Amino acid sequence: MAEDRWLDDTEQRAWRALLVVVNRGLPGLERTLKRHDLLVVHYSMLVALSEAPGRSLRLTDLAEAANVSPSRLSHRLRLLIERGDVAIESVEGDARGKTAVLTETGHERLIEVAPHHVEDVRRLVFDHLDEDETACLAAALGKVADVLCRRDGTTTDVG
Amino acid sequence: MAEDRWLDDTEQRAWRALLVVVNRGLPGLERTLKRHDLLVVHYSMLVALSEAPGRSLRLTDLAEAANVSPSRLSHRLRLLIERGDVAIESVEGDARGKTAVLTETGHERLIEVAPHHVEDVRRLVFDHLDEDETACLAAALGKVADVLCRRDGTTTDVG
Repeated sequence: MAEDRWLDDTEQRAWRALLVVVNRGLPGLERTLKRHDLLVVHYSMLVALSEAPGRSLRLTDLAEAANVSPSRLSHRLRLLIERGDVAIESVEGDARGKTAVLTETGHERLIEVAPHHVEDVRRLVFDHLDEDETACLAAALGKVADVLCRRDGTTTDVG
Repeated sequence: MAEDRWLDDTEQRAWRALLVVVNRGLPGLERTLKRHDLLVVHYSMLVALSEAPGRSLRLTDLAEAANVSPSRLSHRLRLLIERGDVAIESVEGDARGKTAVLTETGHERLIEVAPHHVEDVRRLVFDHLDEDETACLAAALGKVADVLCRRDGTTTDVG
């Protein structure tokens, strides 16, 4: 491989920092959510539904919003359905299939855990950055994320 | 929770973009490494050893560099040791314990896979960012990463 394809110092710092954040920071978020019987992926699905009209999304849109591959969605939803946080409905007259709906139970679980989760996110990331740093993080990561979403065939921009 | 603790629009974009990158982007890197019989965590350990004097690190330093919790290190090393990529040595006269050494086999596996992995990282992240964006990503993520490393009791800065 040509020498200039190795990461330069700045790229290495960015990449290694990302690995530190992912491997050391994200597990802490899981711990808070676990106390409320949730994994991060469940939390993502509850949030996505809570933000949707009627707190309801087609399953494909839910997978999209929660960054879950469509083939893994049913597996991930199972726990939430079994304990009544999410209900699955068929949409009458809509051949496009099923929708997931956030139940009152699920909504209550979400509003109970959300403040703790947001505090975790602040403590992990935003408490250490000023406005400019946050803005550039959003722009840079946003670009990378948008490429991934387009690759996966969605037109949904992040955020 | 006070209203102003919810994430604002910019923070949401940054955070959600991070989740997209982690959940949609990182698995792709695992696929390349898997073709070389490695997980990302193994790759991180091989890289850390390859960069160390004598290609050797004390186990605590290896855990640090690879972002593996010390309690999980032996488990993670097992595969590498069993197939001869890494050897464990006791350091004579050093009461501080064992070191891990990258073997010639391990080094060869690393130099075979590294170019492919770096191309993955570029395609995921750096091909989409200009110099300024990369620099700000390094600065912002670097700050967050440094906080995590200090929390974990290390003085090692990222990168």
